[in-house]
Amino acid sequence: MSDPLITLAAARRRLQHTPADISSSSNPKWRHLRELLESARERRRSGQTVLEGWHLLDAWLATGRPIRQLVIPQRTLQQLAGVPASDGDDIDESVEHSSPVQVAANAHWLILDDRLFGELDLLPSPSPVLAVVDTPRPLLPARLGEGGDIIVLDRVQDPGNVGAILRTAAAAGVQTLLTTPGTAACWAPKVLRAGMGGHFVMDIVENVAPHALQALVTHLPLAGTVLQGGQSLYGTDLRSPLAWVFGNEGEGIAPALQERLGLRLTIPQAAGVESLNVAASAAVCLFEQRRQRLV
Amino acid sequence: MSDPLITLAAARRRLQHTPADISSSSNPKWRHLRELLESARERRRSGQTVLEGWHLLDAWLATGRPIRQLVIPQRTLQQLAGVPASDGDDIDESVEHSSPVQVAANAHWLILDDRLFGELDLLPSPSPVLAVVDTPRPLLPARLGEGGDIIVLDRVQDPGNVGAILRTAAAAGVQTLLTTPGTAACWAPKVLRAGMGGHFVMDIVENVAPHALQALVTHLPLAGTVLQGGQSLYGTDLRSPLAWVFGNEGEGIAPALQERLGLRLTIPQAAGVESLNVAASAAVCLFEQRRQRLV
Repeated sequence: MSDPLITLAAARRRLQHTPADISSSSNPKWRHLRELLESARERRRSGQTVLEGWHLLDAWLATGRPIRQLVIPQRTLQQLAGVPASDGDDIDESVEHSSPVQVAANAHWLILDDRLFGELDLLPSPSPVLAVVDTPRPLLPARLGEGGDIIVLDRVQDPGNVGAILRTAAAAGVQTLLTTPGTAACWAPKVLRAGMGGHFVMDIVENVAPHALQALVTHLPLAGTVLQGGQSLYGTDLRSPLAWVFGNEGEGIAPALQERLGLRLTIPQAAGVESLNVAASAAVCLFEQRRQRLV
Repeated sequence: MSDPLITLAAARRRLQHTPADISSSSNPKWRHLRELLESARERRRSGQTVLEGWHLLDAWLATGRPIRQLVIPQRTLQQLAGVPASDGDDIDESVEHSSPVQVAANAHWLILDDRLFGELDLLPSPSPVLAVVDTPRPLLPARLGEGGDIIVLDRVQDPGNVGAILRTAAAAGVQTLLTTPGTAACWAPKVLRAGMGGHFVMDIVENVAPHALQALVTHLPLAGTVLQGGQSLYGTDLRSPLAWVFGNEGEGIAPALQERLGLRLTIPQAAGVESLNVAASAAVCLFEQRRQRLV
């Protein structure tokens, strides 16, 4: 990936507007930002979310999608001022609308007083940049499952698990992920952090009611793991597209969905120990499928 | 697993001492407990740690190892009083020293005022029981690696990742785990929680200096993943015992250890996306090894 600091420095040189300086906590833009970070309700209401840190910003810029606001603390602005113009920086005219530099330049820049930036409820890590974006809300594909595997998260509650599965799914090449009500919200900052950009290469459709799911997933067999009594993951042909269902941490897959599993799989594991965590289970399943397709 | 509430109720009926009631925050036992929960230094100094919640207590009891203190809030004590004596409860004489009931009965019981219990820095979850135990510190086996695979965590920093790998390793049947300095402390409450009892079925030796590691791991080839240029995980015979090395989240395996890898493996993944998280990578590697041995 590129160095987002260089990208931002180039974007800054072609800004068409003057960045807004914010130094008061009564500023409505600051308040909105704080609410987006702290409140799931506000994220739903506004249809927006916040990306924290260079890595997510970089991955988002690579998609070419617009950014509403780039939020930068004073100290990062000073860093940008110190980045020398690069060779490619002059070839302005040729830069596409969706290039990372142009996407960053088209955003509204908010420059935050360092103290105000420090007051935000950010994840523990030095992440001196934020981006406010419209939460992608893809429509359900009309012919779900004709484009490859899909993943269904059934009431997976832990944000770290949801993020980990998104990251793993992206690495496995899965492009569609659905969640049932009760699953942690995918676009929360903590899930985004764990997803490491996996969100941006997938179509994520949240809160699909189980009955809607049953109507939708008609092209693909549902595959899920059960602790005992399933057929061995390793003895099953997984090469055709599947709809993988990963269930709640404590309760597993809901009974109504369990009944509809075309493949009830068991991961053979050591005796007398706790079962795999759902994110580890997903990694084992998705990469076993990948292995079978590669060999 | 058993129902630990029934176990504790039976243990309570055979207590040889009167539980200590603690209702003041100036009580030294209470202070020690709080320090154990909050301070890595205090855990190191005392050689003790704290297990939170029923699941970890249950898994620990299954090992037969002693418990120093069982810490129970008033409200849980009231629950215990409501558990009827079970059939097996009278066959007292035959109960072994290491049976769960006897281990629980041999612990010192501290009954905490509910308010005091609520002031403890516990993980977010209803977990109305704590156990103070001596942190297991197994000696390094003299003939390391003759008993099967081992895992080396090289500066894996995130407690959630360390815990997840412990849980996965236990499920994969690995029995020895070493860490290099810079790895998150394995016996911290957060790691214990994520490990779900995996800790208790493994020998964990922490803070093994890299040069000591090199001298120790002479019987087994070191195996680790690299992002590019390694041999495919799926095309490599992994059936003989290996010393798996999993590295730091950002930097991977330290160069000195990388040089010594006998197997440099690459997990084939989709193009253009972030690599797998270290815990997902460990799950894929360990279960691919398990698959090869089973088929």
